[in-house]
Amino acid sequence: MYSIPQLQQIIQKAMDDKQYPSHPKELYEPIAYLMALGGKRLRPALVLMATDLFGGDIYKAIKPALAIETFHNFTLMHDDIMDKAPLRRGKPTVHEKWSESVAILSGDVMFVEAFKLMIQVDVFILPQVLGVFNDTAVGVCEGQQIDMNFETARRVSVTDYVEMIRLKTAVLLGGALKIGALIGDASLSEADKLYDFGLNLGIAFQLQDDILDVYGDPKKFGKQVGGDILSNKKTFLLIKALELADEQTLQQLNGYLDSATISPSEKVMAVTAIYNKLNIKAIAQAEMMAYAEIGLKALSEIDAPDERKMILKEFASILVERDN
Amino acid sequence: MYSIPQLQQIIQKAMDDKQYPSHPKELYEPIAYLMALGGKRLRPALVLMATDLFGGDIYKAIKPALAIETFHNFTLMHDDIMDKAPLRRGKPTVHEKWSESVAILSGDVMFVEAFKLMIQVDVFILPQVLGVFNDTAVGVCEGQQIDMNFETARRVSVTDYVEMIRLKTAVLLGGALKIGALIGDASLSEADKLYDFGLNLGIAFQLQDDILDVYGDPKKFGKQVGGDILSNKKTFLLIKALELADEQTLQQLNGYLDSATISPSEKVMAVTAIYNKLNIKAIAQAEMMAYAEIGLKALSEIDAPDERKMILKEFASILVERDN
Repeated sequence: MYSIPQLQQIIQKAMDDKQYPSHPKELYEPIAYLMALGGKRLRPALVLMATDLFGGDIYKAIKPALAIETFHNFTLMHDDIMDKAPLRRGKPTVHEKWSESVAILSGDVMFVEAFKLMIQVDVFILPQVLGVFNDTAVGVCEGQQIDMNFETARRVSVTDYVEMIRLKTAVLLGGALKIGALIGDASLSEADKLYDFGLNLGIAFQLQDDILDVYGDPKKFGKQVGGDILSNKKTFLLIKALELADEQTLQQLNGYLDSATISPSEKVMAVTAIYNKLNIKAIAQAEMMAYAEIGLKALSEIDAPDERKMILKEFASILVERDN
Repeated sequence: MYSIPQLQQIIQKAMDDKQYPSHPKELYEPIAYLMALGGKRLRPALVLMATDLFGGDIYKAIKPALAIETFHNFTLMHDDIMDKAPLRRGKPTVHEKWSESVAILSGDVMFVEAFKLMIQVDVFILPQVLGVFNDTAVGVCEGQQIDMNFETARRVSVTDYVEMIRLKTAVLLGGALKIGALIGDASLSEADKLYDFGLNLGIAFQLQDDILDVYGDPKKFGKQVGGDILSNKKTFLLIKALELADEQTLQQLNGYLDSATISPSEKVMAVTAIYNKLNIKAIAQAEMMAYAEIGLKALSEIDAPDERKMILKEFASILVERDN
């Protein structure tokens, strides 16, 4: 049994050891650059946790874990182009530092690198592992497209929103766990329960992200507090507020969203005040906890020793209690 | 044994039967659109030819053949963004018809679709097949990057150029054949010989493309004759001309390349006249034939019935004798 920091360290070591070709440098330098920008490495840690849960050899899961982290960073590289994001973890994004063409093509190679890492599992589980990985990849792309469609949609329902974050964020957590479970020789039904744990925790994770954007401690939250409000992003909080507001409040809220003259700090304050009046934070937290509990219930039904489940419960509480 | 048109028909039928999800439509409509724009389907036909060469069941090779065609079209979708191409086979490119974001993300999903098709081979050959496919994908991306680097390079050698087209164009033909051979239960050494056939034919194929751009019959050649000359593209013809020109001719040639005032038709005529003076067409044809012959020699060394090799020889002559 391992602790989360131990697993993160094992992953970091494997990432540091990973070498990319040197030529053509426009393809490989951006991969090394983006992968080195950091992050908590929680997704690859999930692969190892899942293998360990079923008593498997975590060293068999390291390459697939790196595959998950490489795939995740590939999606960030391409998403940043589409979102025209200038910064990633405080550093210039790949398309800003190099060019859009480099970010497209280097991302494509990164995706192949992820596949090259993922196929390094025992051949008897290879078809299932790749089936999960492909489904995950399709889901993440679909989620990103639906998220982009939301930008221009007039109204988004909570149901549609949760479906979007399920695809864009949660299936990768579920997929990472399921792949780790298969490497740990779990049966398909046990692996599916762990997938459900990851999927629901993933939805809770994104809801917590939405809450932190507005209610996070500016000292601890890595991004600008209120960033979602300033970009009119249709988060759970805004969608719920639009749903619950009476006519007068709705008019006010839409006024702030449409205003071209309001200052950024005023806008964040005014929209937050409406959220407060409508009790949105507590509603969002209740929604988040509900998904976390569905996830924990799936975990409780898995046939594995309780002490091995501890790390996944700890992981769940980190996700929902985190302040950054 | 099958004829090339029979194989093309089998592939077209399988492509017509292929269904994509309907939602989100921005992801899947561009895939169906690009795949339906046509083309000779030679790459997937190669997969089937290779399986048939070794007496394998070509119906086991259809999904992997579609994987190769899907992958090829994915690279076109992304390359067209990078090359800012407005048209593909006379129709608007995906980034023109939809948007760049759609072309990036729809391309990413297309790549996953290719993987989903490719993993549908017998599990005992799956690791090798995916190894070939991954290496092929990396090669194609590297080739595209090197090709883009050539745009701003002052001077490119013939050796560097052939290495670029080997990666960008030829490895996919080799990879398609090797995968088909593995499905046909060929030994690795026989599959590698067929790879060499495809690789060298692929280089010949691109050299013929370079020749046709200048010397093709405008009625038969699908693109504008002289397009490479107008865009100063460093093709085999230009590279060789720059290498062989005496000082005065070199000055003339560079003058045409750098001129901002020369009319397009004058430029094509003037550069073609220099090519003619330097005998570039014959030199390029000799180079092309040399690669075709290396390929045919590799084919002759394969342990398979001569009558089954006929279709691949026919394919080789189509490639080098084609006028479009």
